[in-house]
Amino acid sequence: MRDVCIIGIGQTPIGEEWELSLRQMASRAVRAAAADAGIEKPDALFVGNMMAARLSDQAHLGALIADYAGWRGIEAATVEAACASGGAAMMAAVRAVGSGEVDIAAVCGVEKMTEATSAEVVSGLATAADADYEVAHGVTFVGLNALIMQRYMHEYQIPHENFGIFSLNAHQNAVNNPNAMFRRAISAEVYNEAPMIAPPVNLYDSSPICDGSAAVILAPLELARRMPDIRPVRVLASASATDCLNLAERHDLLALEAARLSAQKAYARAGVGPQDIDLFEVHDAFSIMAALSLEAGGFAPRGQGTCFARDEGIGITGRLPISTMGGLKARGHPVGATGVYEIVDLATQLRGEAGANQVRDARIGMTQNIGGTGATVITHILATA
Amino acid sequence: MRDVCIIGIGQTPIGEEWELSLRQMASRAVRAAAADAGIEKPDALFVGNMMAARLSDQAHLGALIADYAGWRGIEAATVEAACASGGAAMMAAVRAVGSGEVDIAAVCGVEKMTEATSAEVVSGLATAADADYEVAHGVTFVGLNALIMQRYMHEYQIPHENFGIFSLNAHQNAVNNPNAMFRRAISAEVYNEAPMIAPPVNLYDSSPICDGSAAVILAPLELARRMPDIRPVRVLASASATDCLNLAERHDLLALEAARLSAQKAYARAGVGPQDIDLFEVHDAFSIMAALSLEAGGFAPRGQGTCFARDEGIGITGRLPISTMGGLKARGHPVGATGVYEIVDLATQLRGEAGANQVRDARIGMTQNIGGTGATVITHILATA
Repeated sequence: MRDVCIIGIGQTPIGEEWELSLRQMASRAVRAAAADAGIEKPDALFVGNMMAARLSDQAHLGALIADYAGWRGIEAATVEAACASGGAAMMAAVRAVGSGEVDIAAVCGVEKMTEATSAEVVSGLATAADADYEVAHGVTFVGLNALIMQRYMHEYQIPHENFGIFSLNAHQNAVNNPNAMFRRAISAEVYNEAPMIAPPVNLYDSSPICDGSAAVILAPLELARRMPDIRPVRVLASASATDCLNLAERHDLLALEAARLSAQKAYARAGVGPQDIDLFEVHDAFSIMAALSLEAGGFAPRGQGTCFARDEGIGITGRLPISTMGGLKARGHPVGATGVYEIVDLATQLRGEAGANQVRDARIGMTQNIGGTGATVITHILATA
Repeated sequence: MRDVCIIGIGQTPIGEEWELSLRQMASRAVRAAAADAGIEKPDALFVGNMMAARLSDQAHLGALIADYAGWRGIEAATVEAACASGGAAMMAAVRAVGSGEVDIAAVCGVEKMTEATSAEVVSGLATAADADYEVAHGVTFVGLNALIMQRYMHEYQIPHENFGIFSLNAHQNAVNNPNAMFRRAISAEVYNEAPMIAPPVNLYDSSPICDGSAAVILAPLELARRMPDIRPVRVLASASATDCLNLAERHDLLALEAARLSAQKAYARAGVGPQDIDLFEVHDAFSIMAALSLEAGGFAPRGQGTCFARDEGIGITGRLPISTMGGLKARGHPVGATGVYEIVDLATQLRGEAGANQVRDARIGMTQNIGGTGATVITHILATA
């Protein structure tokens, strides 16, 4: 497979978007990415989306967004892997360019959730879990994450307050990100006293319901090097692994096995290891997932994700900066778009454009996009060119 | 991109499936394809599905089906392009194997429609069209196809009865296909007197609401040639093109522009032209689509799709056999699975296993999978190895 790189990035600010429709948000993000790359029209578009068919009665987003972006006629499709849809779309695009069949590919993650009722969103999110063996019993998606967190706290004797560091870090980093939903820092006290959503998951352990769209433009590295004014970010690896949806059937509830497998594949393809990763955009949809990702990725021993965060540092100047632009928690989590926002945030860092949040000497970074409670995990490793 | 071929095929009989759930149907099809290929486990699974999130409250089918097939851990994702989802999943799999990152890939098309109410199915199918500019006005998906057919009949002065040949051919071919839904021939009289669904689309112009799952296994040609007992079918081309969803914004309502573009790309990649195609699995979800596909594919001049069918022959011994195992009309149209059924039918022909329906000396064949009313069209050209 030929070397692939990112030559353009774009995004809409995450929040409750009442002015733009789904297609308008998406075309704004892809047009911004295309302008950033200095290209007029890609050869193909890969859309990451999870819930538009349910929440907006609109499937078939590939052709729709291509048309609204002014690219009628190009190849286009949607890729779905629940909350990992954005990462899965990125992966399909990397393969398309890598295979040699496509030169310029656009990736667009998009989700519009706030126009729907809470009930519609809750049941929409639950389609990421096992409909027959989990959701049929009445559990929500937050409830499933609460079960994992409860087990983790019990198994490793970790108090709830230890998870606060993930939320505090994310909110701190979001302050300087103009595209983040919650641009204010929170204190440990605020975290500890937050209302419960599904015990032990509290308000600040959870990511918000929101709208947003992010996009990147990919090209073969060889081509990008001949393009003017492009600072290419290399895609060293794009890898995916799965597990069963149903938590009750997991071999090990706290192993996040798909994250481990996915990271291992990515490390092997990139020829690097955890020690080489300068920053890590984790899928902190819930605090527990940030801890489990650090462990599955080989950064922290099992049960020590929160201790690693406290002792080694996950802030901008820490050993392993995570959620550097606010993460899912504070930048926001427009579900199918999130995997692409992670890529955009990491590319921003590797281009040295992260402003006050810039991680110094960032050369290699990783993103992990988790579908469901860990049934699909997509890992990307990017590097400066 | 390295050469890719099909080394295994599998399918469930199409119909109203009351015994098997969505995941059971899908895992039955992929296990059959894997057994046919003589492999235990692929490296990746690509699922084509359009409506499970709405009709079965289940998204995230990649990981789910991988797990139920006994392949927990492998890479998996769902690809969606409305009614062209199956073809789009096939295309992603071809790229994955072609790129060199995946050796053995499984493709699974699956749709379960008959458990839902008619209203749920009608509104589910309508998500293939433009929600804001078409469906909001109350038009159904059948209604949109009726508008195209009406315009075609008016523009070219083609009487409705001329379309009967597509339905008669499909029903005739389904008689010998044990996996087809409607295994009985119909007469011109039955066609002409059928009740109207949405004038001028009558019952026999429309494909059925049904359940089904089809699967194929892909491998690099070089690897397949070293495998025992494999009769590989080569993938000469896999190509996609799009148009706007909204019929009112088409440059030319009767051109099926995405089909023309998609076929042109496929011909160029395969190094063949329409004259080289021995059989053509068309997307005859509605009779009008069969006529438009023949024209857009370069087989018949514009407005002469029905005349071509009558004069040149579309039966098993005709100039261009189409819908050779019954097509969408009579084999059935489980929406997101259809593109994969087309591939399975064509591979069956190219392997010389089509029994009474075998097209003699079939060496190169084409499939076309249409999303919506032509907004996404995926063309595959396959050949004997």
